[in-house]
Amino acid sequence: MAAFLAANFPQTKCTVEAVSSAGTATVRHPVTHAELRPGGTVSGPVLMTVADVALYVALLGQIGLKPLAVTTSLNINFLRKPAADKDIIGVCRMKKVGRTLAVGEVDLFSEGEAEPVAHAVGTYAIPQR
Amino acid sequence: MAAFLAANFPQTKCTVEAVSSAGTATVRHPVTHAELRPGGTVSGPVLMTVADVALYVALLGQIGLKPLAVTTSLNINFLRKPAADKDIIGVCRMKKVGRTLAVGEVDLFSEGEAEPVAHAVGTYAIPQR
Amino acid sequence: MAAFLAANFPQTKCTVEAVSSAGTATVRHPVTHAELRPGGTVSGPVLMTVADVALYVALLGQIGLKPLAVTTSLNINFLRKPAADKDIIGVCRMKKVGRTLAVGEVDLFSEGEAEPVAHAVGTYAIPQR
Amino acid sequence: MAAFLAANFPQTKCTVEAVSSAGTATVRHPVTHAELRPGGTVSGPVLMTVADVALYVALLGQIGLKPLAVTTSLNINFLRKPAADKDIIGVCRMKKVGRTLAVGEVDLFSEGEAEPVAHAVGTYAIPQR
Repeated sequence: MAAFLAANFPQTKCTVEAVSSAGTATVRHPVTHAELRPGGTVSGPVLMTVADVALYVALLGQIGLKPLAVTTSLNINFLRKPAADKDIIGVCRMKKVGRTLAVGEVDLFSEGEAEPVAHAVGTYAIPQR
Repeated sequence: MAAFLAANFPQTKCTVEAVSSAGTATVRHPVTHAELRPGGTVSGPVLMTVADVALYVALLGQIGLKPLAVTTSLNINFLRKPAADKDIIGVCRMKKVGRTLAVGEVDLFSEGEAEPVAHAVGTYAIPQR
Repeated sequence: MAAFLAANFPQTKCTVEAVSSAGTATVRHPVTHAELRPGGTVSGPVLMTVADVALYVALLGQIGLKPLAVTTSLNINFLRKPAADKDIIGVCRMKKVGRTLAVGEVDLFSEGEAEPVAHAVGTYAIPQR
Repeated sequence: MAAFLAANFPQTKCTVEAVSSAGTATVRHPVTHAELRPGGTVSGPVLMTVADVALYVALLGQIGLKPLAVTTSLNINFLRKPAADKDIIGVCRMKKVGRTLAVGEVDLFSEGEAEPVAHAVGTYAIPQR
């Protein structure tokens, strides 16, 4: 999965912490100065990126490594200010994996915190042969 | 606006093409090899970033430069495959700018194309004194 | 289209005001006491229903009368308080009609008002033979 | 809560099955012929209505009975075909209840089924004195 992710998301800094065949995944995104906005907040696009990668990893963990799966929608709510000095952890659970469409949700945390900093729901189109 | 954007979104590559006090804005994001995924598609997180910046610019164009405005939600639908060799253009129209909440929509285009590659709706919380 | 709508949405009070083969539609929902909440607001679920019907009519206007098209997602933002004594008008434009997925947006108005009371984006799955 | 719900959502058929001060709630919507579409599916607007009520009940369970709380957005994904002969059960968990904004998610089930028929995320604006 790590090699597959590196090949298909060459820009991502995320690493895969866990993935299962039941449609769950945990990914980590290191937070460095480049991810911060003034005031010490992790930027929204960084959180969206982590959500997108977590969904992708959870989906492929369940259906196998299909490079052509594409995100069709993402809905994210920003809930709390992320910590400037903690990695972002994305925890995904697929809600449905159908033949052509998959839907999953992601809680995003500043590492070690109990309450999520954001929550996302995404849909993926699964390529047909 | 350009200086303000650089200060508040220091990582962004977006430039402001147009902005009005009526809640509209157009931004441009150059597409280089770093934005591409295998197959020559602009990555989803790049499109989300452009949508977020376009909303921010359109909102601040209407209410003035308030650095504490924060995105509270973003919903994006990916519609068509972006061109690998064209900049992404984000065109935003605010739908409502209230006292505490603002809502806007963004069409995202590969430059020069008539049909959008993605469409986003975002909400911003406006800081109170 | 009116007969088709009555057959497939037997509960709806919406009527079709306009529909085109280019993916646009306008529908009307009469507002009576049954649609109001205390304070004279049209209830949110009524607005969601109008959005859903407007998307359905616009999609079928473009692809033809296919009864099995189903909504896969709806995202709605409530923008302004609807008038208690005006019909709700839903104006839909499809953003993309692909082979298997369609995406459209709807502005919802209290009849005669310039500013929308809500804005929705919906996706439909198009049945394959 | 039941009396409050009846006063503020006079049209709803939902009943409150459970509610806690920790931001959780379960509501039930009876499914009769009036809720069905051809083919025996519960209509999408019914599911949206249950999601909206479940969010409202969970929020008021946590913050107290404030009639002016209003939905500002709802995002729903339809996952599976609901059963025609089973009530719809909505199970809500608030993700954040802030001073002015609240966000919650709802799983919607055909009673007795393990997998949800839909999943919604909603935001509420909390009135200030």
